[in-house]
Order: sequence, then C-alpha cells, then structure tokens
Amino acid sequence: MEAKKYVYFFGGGKAEGSAVMKELLGGKGANLAEMTNLGIPVPPGFTISTEVCDIYYKQNRKYPEELEKQVADNLKKLEELMGKQLGDPKAPLLVSVRSGAAVSMPGMMDTVLNLGTNDSSVKGLEVMTGNEWFAWDAYRRFIQMFGDVVMGVEHDEFEKILSSQKNKRGIKLDTELDIDDLKQIVADYKKLYKTHTGEDFPQDPKKQLWKSINAVFGSWNNERAIKYREINDIKGLLGTAVNVQTMVFGNVGNDSGTGVCFTRDPSTGDNRFYGEYLINAQGEDVVAGIRTPESLEDMKQEMPDKYEQLNKIRDKLERHYRDMQDMEFTIERDTLYILQTRTGKRTAHAAVKIAVDMEKEGLIDHKTAVMRVEPNQLNQLLHPMIDPDEDVEVIASGLPASPGAAVGEIVFTADKAEEEAAKGKEVILVRIETSPDDIGGMNAAEGILTARGGMTSHAAVVARGMGKCCVAGCSDVHILNESECEIGGIHFSTGDYITLNGTSGEVIKGQVKLIEPEPTGDFAKLMEWADEARRLKVRTNADTPADAENARKLGAEGIGLCRTEHMFFEGNRIDSVREMILAEDEEGRRKALHKLLPMQQEDFEGIFKAMDGLPVTIRLLDPPLHEFLPQDVDEIEELAESIGVSTKRLTKKVESLREFNPMLGHRGCRLGITYPEIYEMQVEAIFLAACSVKKTGVKVLPEVMIPLTGTFKEMALLHELTRRTAEDVMKKQKGKVPYLIGTMIEIPRAALIADKIAEFAEFFSYGTNDLTQMTFGYSRDDAGVFLPEYLKKGILEKDPFQVLDQEGVGQLIDISIQRGRKTKKDLKIGICGEHGGEPSSVEFCHRLGMNYVSCSPFRVPIARLAAAQAAITQSK
Amino acid sequence: MEAKKYVYFFGGGKAEGSAVMKELLGGKGANLAEMTNLGIPVPPGFTISTEVCDIYYKQNRKYPEELEKQVADNLKKLEELMGKQLGDPKAPLLVSVRSGAAVSMPGMMDTVLNLGTNDSSVKGLEVMTGNEWFAWDAYRRFIQMFGDVVMGVEHDEFEKILSSQKNKRGIKLDTELDIDDLKQIVADYKKLYKTHTGEDFPQDPKKQLWKSINAVFGSWNNERAIKYREINDIKGLLGTAVNVQTMVFGNVGNDSGTGVCFTRDPSTGDNRFYGEYLINAQGEDVVAGIRTPESLEDMKQEMPDKYEQLNKIRDKLERHYRDMQDMEFTIERDTLYILQTRTGKRTAHAAVKIAVDMEKEGLIDHKTAVMRVEPNQLNQLLHPMIDPDEDVEVIASGLPASPGAAVGEIVFTADKAEEEAAKGKEVILVRIETSPDDIGGMNAAEGILTARGGMTSHAAVVARGMGKCCVAGCSDVHILNESECEIGGIHFSTGDYITLNGTSGEVIKGQVKLIEPEPTGDFAKLMEWADEARRLKVRTNADTPADAENARKLGAEGIGLCRTEHMFFEGNRIDSVREMILAEDEEGRRKALHKLLPMQQEDFEGIFKAMDGLPVTIRLLDPPLHEFLPQDVDEIEELAESIGVSTKRLTKKVESLREFNPMLGHRGCRLGITYPEIYEMQVEAIFLAACSVKKTGVKVLPEVMIPLTGTFKEMALLHELTRRTAEDVMKKQKGKVPYLIGTMIEIPRAALIADKIAEFAEFFSYGTNDLTQMTFGYSRDDAGVFLPEYLKKGILEKDPFQVLDQEGVGQLIDISIQRGRKTKKDLKIGICGEHGGEPSSVEFCHRLGMNYVSCSPFRVPIARLAAAQAAITQSK
Repeated sequence: MEAKKYVYFFGGGKAEGSAVMKELLGGKGANLAEMTNLGIPVPPGFTISTEVCDIYYKQNRKYPEELEKQVADNLKKLEELMGKQLGDPKAPLLVSVRSGAAVSMPGMMDTVLNLGTNDSSVKGLEVMTGNEWFAWDAYRRFIQMFGDVVMGVEHDEFEKILSSQKNKRGIKLDTELDIDDLKQIVADYKKLYKTHTGEDFPQDPKKQLWKSINAVFGSWNNERAIKYREINDIKGLLGTAVNVQTMVFGNVGNDSGTGVCFTRDPSTGDNRFYGEYLINAQGEDVVAGIRTPESLEDMKQEMPDKYEQLNKIRDKLERHYRDMQDMEFTIERDTLYILQTRTGKRTAHAAVKIAVDMEKEGLIDHKTAVMRVEPNQLNQLLHPMIDPDEDVEVIASGLPASPGAAVGEIVFTADKAEEEAAKGKEVILVRIETSPDDIGGMNAAEGILTARGGMTSHAAVVARGMGKCCVAGCSDVHILNESECEIGGIHFSTGDYITLNGTSGEVIKGQVKLIEPEPTGDFAKLMEWADEARRLKVRTNADTPADAENARKLGAEGIGLCRTEHMFFEGNRIDSVREMILAEDEEGRRKALHKLLPMQQEDFEGIFKAMDGLPVTIRLLDPPLHEFLPQDVDEIEELAESIGVSTKRLTKKVESLREFNPMLGHRGCRLGITYPEIYEMQVEAIFLAACSVKKTGVKVLPEVMIPLTGTFKEMALLHELTRRTAEDVMKKQKGKVPYLIGTMIEIPRAALIADKIAEFAEFFSYGTNDLTQMTFGYSRDDAGVFLPEYLKKGILEKDPFQVLDQEGVGQLIDISIQRGRKTKKDLKIGICGEHGGEPSSVEFCHRLGMNYVSCSPFRVPIARLAAAQAAITQSK
Repeated sequence: MEAKKYVYFFGGGKAEGSAVMKELLGGKGANLAEMTNLGIPVPPGFTISTEVCDIYYKQNRKYPEELEKQVADNLKKLEELMGKQLGDPKAPLLVSVRSGAAVSMPGMMDTVLNLGTNDSSVKGLEVMTGNEWFAWDAYRRFIQMFGDVVMGVEHDEFEKILSSQKNKRGIKLDTELDIDDLKQIVADYKKLYKTHTGEDFPQDPKKQLWKSINAVFGSWNNERAIKYREINDIKGLLGTAVNVQTMVFGNVGNDSGTGVCFTRDPSTGDNRFYGEYLINAQGEDVVAGIRTPESLEDMKQEMPDKYEQLNKIRDKLERHYRDMQDMEFTIERDTLYILQTRTGKRTAHAAVKIAVDMEKEGLIDHKTAVMRVEPNQLNQLLHPMIDPDEDVEVIASGLPASPGAAVGEIVFTADKAEEEAAKGKEVILVRIETSPDDIGGMNAAEGILTARGGMTSHAAVVARGMGKCCVAGCSDVHILNESECEIGGIHFSTGDYITLNGTSGEVIKGQVKLIEPEPTGDFAKLMEWADEARRLKVRTNADTPADAENARKLGAEGIGLCRTEHMFFEGNRIDSVREMILAEDEEGRRKALHKLLPMQQEDFEGIFKAMDGLPVTIRLLDPPLHEFLPQDVDEIEELAESIGVSTKRLTKKVESLREFNPMLGHRGCRLGITYPEIYEMQVEAIFLAACSVKKTGVKVLPEVMIPLTGTFKEMALLHELTRRTAEDVMKKQKGKVPYLIGTMIEIPRAALIADKIAEFAEFFSYGTNDLTQMTFGYSRDDAGVFLPEYLKKGILEKDPFQVLDQEGVGQLIDISIQRGRKTKKDLKIGICGEHGGEPSSVEFCHRLGMNYVSCSPFRVPIARLAAAQAAITQSK
C-alpha cells in the first residue's frame, strides 16, 4: 500500500497542488501551486498539508509516521532544484516557514524567515551575495525570529541587546550598525538564547526546520488564533498548512530589487499597470518608507527586460483569476520571482469601473460583475467625500449620523443658517440638539453638527432623509452662546470654517477639499445588472415629495415608510397639533384635527404624485404626544402666551404627558386606540388625497400602516377603523383606489402572535429599530454608554442597530414570517428599519423570503446591489 | 327507527336528564333534572337540548323535523302533571322560557317569564289566585318582556307608557298603580306592540311559546353573547338549551313566600342554616329591598312545616353536592318549590372552615378540600381588612400597591413618622413619593400613601416587602407643605386620621374599624394538605433577615430573589455607594467598594442565618447608577457639600448618567460588564458571609444570579468572574459551600437564545416584570395612562403585570425552558416576578415544569395553595 501523501512540492514549472486544493494546502499553499503550474516564476518549495495539522492535534501533538521521510524527500528535491543546500558553507539554501489556512487569518499564526543560517552558512551567504553585512544581518534576524517565535524568548530581550549596541555606538538606525556590531549582536543573541532555553542555538538546519514546523502547527491553537476564529465565526477547518519556501533576496545588488504592483489602477480602475518598486531592497523597505519607491514607469526604463516579463505575468494572472490582482515580486540577481498574488483592494470608483470593464472585455458575466462591488462602498459614490490626499486636523468625533462630507462657516441658529445661505454662503449648523423648529435652517445648511443625541435623534433622522451630512452627539462640542463655541477645546466664532465627515463622525478644523460624487455611466450599468439579478424589491423611507422624488431617481420602487409625524412639525401646523393635544375633550381634538386635515391631505397628494404608479406605505401617528410640546420653562411660557393658555395649565399638561420610558409608553397604535379621532383624520386625509390625485390621472397605491401593534385586538379594531373611514371617503368622493391595511411588527409580542395579527393585516413591515430595542432591552439613545465597550470586549460582534442581529431579533422575524404566512399565504412582507439599507441584513431579508426592503433614499442603490448579491449567492 | 330525542322532561319526582348531561342540557337544565331525580320539589318542565341549537344554526335557522311534535308531547305531559293548561281561562298554566348553556353566561341571553297570559287566561289567573291586581300586573309584565325580548320593541317605549300613567295619577311606585291603571297600561302596551310589529299581540299561547323559543335560540348568537364568549375564551359549545318551566308565585297570599338560603353560614363557615325570606312576595322583592326580609329563624316559627321540609332539602343537597349550596325557594299556596341550587359564594374565612369541616365530616378528601378555596381569597386572612359593616367615605383612589388596611394619623415626613410611632401613635406616612431616606419612617408607619409612582415605585416595592399597606400614585393627593395636604379636595393637617385600603387602592376619611387577620388552625390544616399535594416549591422575594424570617413562617422554602440594591440604600452606606459612582477610575471605585464590602457581608450573614438549610438566590446589582444619586438641584447641592465635591462636578455626573429610557439603559449585568469590580465585591461579600456563618453551624446554599442577561458572552464572562471570585474567597477562608450560578431571564433575546445561555447557567429565574415590559413594549411606570382603557375595551383581558400573559410572554418562557433544558437537562427553573404569587400564573409555571415560584412574603400561602391546585388539576 502506498503511503498517504502529506507533502506537496511546487517549483520548476509545475506543482503537485492547485488552486482548488485550498482546504488541504491552505490559501497560500494552493495559490503558490497554482501560480507554479501557470508557469509563473515562484520561489520553489513544498507545502505540508492541513491534514497533518489535524492528525498532529488528534494524536496529542504527534505527526503521522510517514511525515518525516516525506519532508526529507521534498527538501532533497528542493535542494537539487535550487542547486543549494540548507546550511551549506558555500551555496546555502535559505527557506521561510509559514502558516497558511484555508481561510486567511492575517498575523494570527507564526512565521520563520531566513531558516538555514548558522555559523558556517553565514559565510556561504557572504560569498554568494558578496555582501558580508547582509549575511550577518540575515543571521541576526534569524536568531531573533527563531528565538522569539519558536522558543518563546521574549522579543523585548532581543531588542534590548540591539538597543544597547546602538547606544554604545551612539547611533540610531539599524542600518548604521557595522559588521562588527552585527557579529557582536549575534554573539549576544546566542548567549541570550542559551540563558533562556538552556541549550545552544541549534546549528543543525534540520533541527531548525522541524522546530519551526512544530511552532507553526502549534500556533494554530494559540490563544489569539482561537479567538480570531471565534470572533470571525471560522469553523470546520482541519488546521493550518505549513509552507516551506526558498528565500529570495532583492537586496543583494543593483541587479536585484523588490516591488508591489496592481494589474489595474486600484484608485481609478483604469486598465493600466500600476505599482512601485525599489532597486537593491527588501520588501520591508518598501513598506517602512525609509526610501521612496519608484514607479513602474521607472522600472520600464531601468530594467526593461524584467518589466516586460512582469507585464506579461500581469496579463496571465489577471486573465487566469479574472480579477484585478495585487502582486508582490522580487528580483534576485536578475531573476524575477513572484512571491504572492491576490485580489487587489480598490476604491468604490475603481471597483465599479473594473467590474464593468471586465464584463466588456469578456472576462466576467453580469452576475460576476455585480458580485465584485461591496455594496457599502457605493456610499462613496453617492455623497461628497473628503479628498484622501488632504491633510486634515481632526479635533473631535461624534456619531456618523448621516454620511458624506460638508464644509462651511459655523452658524448657531437655524435663522442665521437660512440668512447666510440666502446670501450664497455655505454654512454648517452647530446646535446642542435640533428641534422641529430648525428644519428650515437644516435644509439651508451644508451639514449639521450636534452636541447631543443619538443615531435616531431629530438631527440624525432628518439629515439622513435630506441626504445631508450630519455628525450627532459630539460631546466635545460646547456651545458658549449664540456666536461662540468650543470644539475639542478649540474656540470658534460665527463664520469660522469647519469640515464634517458624516461617514466617520469626525469634525475637522478649517476648510478641506471635497470630492464630489459622480455616479458615472459605469455605475448605472452595474445597477442595471443588479436589478436583473435581484428578487427583493427596494423601497425608500421618505416623508416629503422631494425625498420621494430623489429616492425614485436612485431606483426606489415605492415608499416603505412615510412617517406622518414629521409633517406635523412643518410650518404652523404644529400650532394645530398643540391645540389638539391641549383640548379638553374629543370635540376639542376633532376641531383641531379638522384644521390639520387639509394640510395632511396636501402632503399625501404631493407624495402620491411623486410616486405615481408605485406603492406608498403611510404609517399613522407614532411618537408620544409630548414630543410635540416644548419642555423648557421659557419655551412653555412662550407657547402659553401665543396660544392664549395659562402657563400653569400648559405646564401641567406637559408634566402629565412626561414619561419615565417614552420608548415603552403611550405611543404608536396606543394613541390610535385612545384617540381614534387622530387616526380617523389621517386615514381621511390619505383617501381624500388618493381620490383627488387619481382624478388627475395619477396611479395611487396607498398602504396604510398601523404602528406598534402588540395585540390581536388592537389590529382588529384599527383595521376596522381604517377600512370604514377609507370606504366612507371613497364613497363620498365617488372614487375607488386599491389599498392595503397592514402593520409594523416591532414589538416582540407581535412577532410571537403573528398568526393572529395576520388575520387583520394584509402586510407586515418589520420596524427593526424598535424590535431591536425591545428584544435586546437596549434604548438606542442610552446604549451609547455601554455599546462601544460591548463591541470592544467582543460581547457583541456588531452594533445591532447597524447590522441586524440574526441570532436573536432574526429569530423573531423568522418565526413571525412563518406564522403570518400560515394565516395568509400571500402576506406582503418588508422591512423599514435602518437595517433595510445594510447589506448583510438585506441578504437576511432575502433569505427569509421578504417581498421588499425599505431604506433611506441614499441607501437605495446599496440595497439594490445587496439584494442582487443575495439572489446570486442563493442561486449558487 | 326511533326519532332522535331532543326534549327532556323533568317533574313528578323524576327526570329524563341528570347532572352529567350538562353539555346536552346546559347547566340549568341538567341541574333541574338532577334535583328532580333527588326528589327535590322543582317546578316541572322540559329542556330542549343544545343539539337543537346547533342544528338550528347549521340548517340556517330551521329546527329538526321531530322537534315540533316532541315539544307538543312534553307540553301536554306538563299540563297533565300540573292539572293546568296554557291559556286556560280557569286554571291557566304559566311557564318561563330560559336559556342555559353548558357554561354559565349570566345575563347574556334571553328570558321570557309569565308566558301563557292572554286576555282570557288573565281572568283565570285572577280566579286562581284571588288577586286581580297580581293577574293584571303579570299580564302587563309579560307583554312588556315578550315585546322587548322576542319582538325587539324598545324597552324605553314601554317604560314611557308606564311613566306617563304614573304621572297622570301623580304617583311614583309601580305598586301604587291600581287595577284600572294596569288595565289601561295593558291596552296601551298592546297598541305599542301593534305599531311596532305590525301585528296584534298574540293571544295563542303556542304561538307565544314558539316565538319565545326562537328568541332564546337566536340570542345565542347576539352580539353581546358572542363577545362574552370571545372575552372569556368559551369555545366548543354546541349552543344553548331552552328550559320551559312552570311558573310558581310566592305572592299569592300569606300561605306563600319566597327566600334565599345557604346550607352553611357563608360569612363564618359555621354549620348552621342561614337565609332570608319574605311572606307573600316574589323573588325580586327580596332583591329590590323594598321590604326587609326576615331570617330563617322567623320562618321556623311562622311556617314550621315548610321550614322543616326546607331543612331536610338542605341536608340532602349538601350531601349530594358535597359543597355548601346557595338555594332559591318559593312557597306557592303552602307548596314548597326549590327554584335553583348552586355552589354558594363565601368569605375566605368561611371557605377555609367549610373545607376543613367537610373533610372532618367525611364528605370530601384532602385534595377536594384544597380545591375549595380560591387562593387569592387568602389575602383576606393574612392582612387586616376594613370591617365590611363599616360605612366608609372614600375620598380618593390610587394604585393598590400593597394589600391590607391601615388607620392612623397623617404625618408628612419619615422623621415625624418615627417620632410619633415612638410615642406609641399609629401614623400614616403621606409623601409625594418615597425615597431610600424614608425607609425608617416607612417601617414605623402603619401604612403609606404616595401621590406619584407606580406598582414598582420605591414605596410599592418596599411596602410589599414589609407586608405593609400602601396606596401609591394617588393623583388626588396634593401636599401643600410639611404639615398640610389636600386629598380629594378635602383639607388635612398633621394628626388628622385617614384610613387606607391597600387591597383596593382606596383612601378613606377618618378612622375606620379594621378586622385583624386570624390564621386559624383550620388555615394551617388546609396549608398542610396543600403542601401534600403540590410539586412546585415556593420561595419568597426578601431583602432583609426580617422579611426572610417572616416569609419562612408563612412557609417559604427558600429565597428566590434577594435584591442587593436595597441594601445599598440603608443607613450611611449610600455615601460609599455615591463615592463609588463619583470615582474617576477603577481604583477609586475599588476603594469605595471596599468600604461597602463588610456591610454587604453582614447583610448576607443575617439572611443566610434566617434561611438556615434553605437556598438563597442573590441577584447582583441591577438598577442604573443614577438611582443612587439625587436628582433635585437642592439635594445635589446638599450632597456636594457633604462629600466635598463641587456642585458643578456632581451636577455634571448626575446629568451624564441621566437616561431617556432607564428601563432599557445601563443597568443589570451591563454594569457588571463595565464595572466588574462591583460584582466582584458583591460575590466576595456573599462567599465571605457564607464561609463565616457555615463555621457557626448554619447550612448555606447560595445561588448567585446575574440580572438582565441578553447575550451568551455576558453570561460566559460573568459566570467566570463569579466562579473565580467565589473559589478565591473559599480558598482563602478554607471553607467550602455548595453554590450555583444562574441568571434572570427577563430580556426577550435571552429567552430566544436560552440554549446557549444555559451552557453557563445552572439555573434560570424568570423576571416576568421586565420580560412583560419588553415583550409588550410597555413601561410599567407609564402604561397607567392607557392600560385602564385597554382593559375596558377588552383589548387586554387582564393587566399583564398582574396576571402573566400566557399567549405572548408565556411563549417566550415556554420556548426558553425547552431550549435551556435541552442544553442542561437538570436546569433549575423558577420565577421571581410579581406573577410568582398570582394563582393562574402559578398554575402556568407548574404546567411548564418549573421547579419553584418566588413571591413576596405575604403571598407565599397563596402560591402554596395555587401550586397545590395546579398539581391536583393536572393529575385529573
């Protein structure tokens, strides 16, 4: 019986492995084999399979019997191919020993370089390279790395010896050390090694090799690697492979060099060869930035042959992998080696261009192109961003409440913002927090900065709706008066410039150059392909005709959430709203509501027109009534005077409405139950508007949504109220529009009794913001105190308000979809929380069989792309 | 083939039905049959089965063919037995037509009395009774009832005629009408009938009968009956039966009468015949209170034969039903009829005595005795109550925050309460709301009344723990200054008397007589039998040794919830707590915690000693830290001065800790994660205490409980922290106590991932208060605004904070028990929310296989009884 194969050779133009053997050879090993087979000049070597790692642990850290011989055979083969031998005093072979699992775990496991150096081979290295300094430096580095990584001698102890030698000589850089210094350091390193390990530094390269192999396999189960796998949910792997590979050196003369290159421009996506290189240097020199690398254009002049060879390899690799590659190369004495190739990182702009170009070039199909762009990257294409080449002075950080960037002069009041904007100035509105009164100023400003409030604060929600940059809850902002503030300890007055980065939450001093978004033809093309592929509909959350139109341009296929309360704040409507709240009885409330009716009707008419032919989901009043009343003593006095009510009475009303936990208070459909006249007015306005625009030829598809349902009877009663009111209006108007009545599912209990709720609901829309709050017991406005620590400590992997918690909240969604559809097979189901525009959450919604997702206008393209990727992934 | 039987006769000493035929004959019909078979003199009649109702609706309101003949045959049989005939001008038979389903639905369906009266039989009635007035009044009543119930003529229209006749004559009472009046009214009624129905009032008694039968069957599906069944979850019934029964009259002379009696005293439980009767009267006269009824003792004198006969029936019925009976009887011309018998309502005291007595008498066994007392009734036996014979002036109502009653002089400060109590006075502490500073005064007072705060406010929670009467959140209390207040608009000063009813929430003016509880020997006996039967353990929620001892006396088998935060408030500990909160860093916090350690240790020692041999579940710190800081400007200034911190800094800290939704904020184990040193100190104190008391021979069984867990990692981290700290302490103390580490399940997400949480939990304890809040999205402190309306409108059947919502919250409990036990088969499971002492919730806990329930000390006996009843019910 033939012995099982544990070791796979690569080199000399062919390899025993290939790219498909990732599970067995790890990503790195499989890739090296693949490149070798392609005829790419890769430094030869061999890979010990992941199976060995598995057996090693299963057998309590013993290798399979056959391994020793197989390693020896492959080493011999390698030595023969290279014409060098490990430890040879004339032509020594140096190898690296590296880990490499099927899934990349960067920096988690061990690596040993320069293996094979010892007291005699260091001389051979000297002879071979003609560079004594290089030889001794390589030896020094090897002892340090071996001692640290393999034997556990503290890294610091080596550094102490190095520093002390430099101090002795009064120098600062390693490169200033002379050969005698290096020899002294090698001697001291060896002493340190012996003190700590109780044995001499091993001179036998075979011993060096096996100890290193042990160390790499051992590092598979070190603490940080285990933790990394846990956090990243990496499961089912056999272990790591070990790659033993010939070392090549780019720093052994002017016929040598090293570099990094991309098969296309990673910044613009242009199909041009792009990269940097350094003559007579090692890879780390490029990274360390001690010398400034030259461009590949220079290489074309300086090493035309090598450039030509590299350029051909570029073609070969890109054609083979059908994606833009990021390659590392080294030239050792005029011989080019490719050390690594991998898919290159790129900007959003480049990602779109490369995907579309490659499709044109016939390299990939539509679906593959769609999969090539990370949906969240699109943010960069839709909002202005700070020029990455600018030096910026970040003076404070807040919540990234609404993405994009904005530059402007500081103003402190909404009035001032409008005033200055009218003069053509660009302004940033800085407030402790914003209120409905500030809407005009917010609209006039380029961006908004608040000292208080969370991701769902007034400023944040309104800014996202407007697609306007906003940094919220920045506690380093202290407003001193109406013309001065301190930000991060720096004093600012009205008219001083600041810049906001709403994508990162940073506040930057002064004026910074912005890059404007350019949704190019490539972008449109990619979105077209995405739309071909996806099954989920994408709607938008929009409260105004302007938002609705904007979202429609970005591809929205309807409104998934139109919040009627924002309409209550506009202009002088708030007066009627307050009159209603302060009314003593139903009659008084109805009188005030009657004034609101035509205004609400007008709102809905505008939105219906903007969404002609598309469904519009309108949520009935949701927030607690106290949100419509002032809370400060001064404001209460002012209001009391303006509406002719005693301050005492108004104060009493404000106090009686105050709540300990407004999130769990008298809001949502609870208002509709206790004050049915409010919902009646809203439904009346919806259907008056629908009948009216229908007469002008607009196609109207209203979907009336009851918020915060938690019991069967709430839904039954309010379904009846809505249906009755709608039918009455349509009868009187002699009109007929198709409509649906449904509910938000945002209370855990509603999810649990979804089968019953579905009896009276034609659609469900998941309000995942509230559902997350209640399922976790987190108030979004308060969780900021502990959430960062929860993320840092790994208690939560992701902020559940940004990325839907599939494990907990997801269960409630899953259960309720099943139960809801059991009652009503064709129940329409969507999501309208903030998660509707987050790619992994969109994928989850797709998987659960929802009909649509709804998100803020500027996330519509992101959701479209994510939905397409979900469909493509599932079909595979 | 014989025709199917639809009609069942009863009368003449035997019946075709019996008590077991409830489904077919309805409760009333089966009972009438049963009594007839027992030889009890019941007015004869027949029952049309519920099957007919079912067929009637299934056949679109058509009766089965055979019915007409069966009714005719039975009517003939009845007429023969009675020697009278329907409509007979000399000896007319009068019958009632009544509904009666298998489950009682009082007042929901239709009834027709005096059927058979018409223009000629009214004369027969006159002849038969020798009472013309009676005859015409019966006729008048019949037309009115038949018109209203059967034909849908508005009740008001009849009343108008009646009133107009009385006005005409200048009289007020119906009894003042003379015979001519009655005849005029009958004439007017007939006119009204014709106007509304378009036909003459039917003179044919058969027609009257069939129309009435139709009406009764029709009322099964009237709106209110459907609603009643919906609300009371009555399902699976065939329909109602219809009972046609001979009318008997107690108002036809001095040889007639009517009465109500109980087989034992329903107030004391004494085995004596108890009741009231009236000579020459109808049943409604007893109820209306126009004449004062006489006692049965009088009947013994006045109608000795009838009394003797009745007394024998009493014996027979009680022996037959083996329970105290509530009987209605009528004597018509010296003939005794029993109209109804049913299980009699009784006071708690009577319930216990009757159950124990009947067991002694050999009528029932232990289990039956246990089933005979409604657990909630025990409240009356454990707390003082207001003497029901007292006239009280209720001046305001608040929340029934802690049961019992209390009388005392008003005081407005805790200090004054202690001062006056020390002088031997009984005082009631009246506060806007209480704070931890008031503990001493609360303890000294007889009862507590607050103007603000809910069922979980400080006053409510502490009072329940103390078993002290409390009315909370009474908005009609306005405190004017430190010696005056207004309650319900009435002015009170210090020293004025008020009385509180903590069971109803009423505030009563002045001094009212209270009845002290007497847990008699019968009570102890019944609890002994309950303990024999139950499987669930009953623990208590107790935070002090005194509470613990008290609960133990009431039968608690351990502590299910010991809240450590209440200890933080005691005495000057709050200073150290505040020092900890204000500390700048961990070191500062540890310093302050170090001061708290010996105090906490002392607390735990006291509780461990009190619970020697029983498990004690200690919950680590739960409330948000701001609860320990003052919130008012004045108090902040005072505290700042006393601890030597600037007011500005303290204000800043207070503000930084303020939360929008504290219920969903930084509390529970979130504190343990961000400030592990707090939990470490608490665990250290627990195990120092455990080791210390163990040395004195006390058996300690601590169970450390992590609150508000929502994720797997919180549990994993805090389990490890607890285990490590506990082991450290025990190692240092050279002690070893068995202990468990577990968690509250009170966040919906925790319930959903219970399988994972169970990996690191040895027990689950359901915090159903918070679980209810989050599952419903109701803040208990705020829901008071809409909950009453929700209950009134039937949106919720019960207040979910009082009675566990099995439909929604219950699902989460069910799911998580299954999942938790899947991971850990012997997972210990209990409940420690307020529901732990509510009978239907206890039954639910039993059914789900929990190990224990835990409730406030004074509810322990209630929980024991409820647990026993659950076990007995399940075993059936």
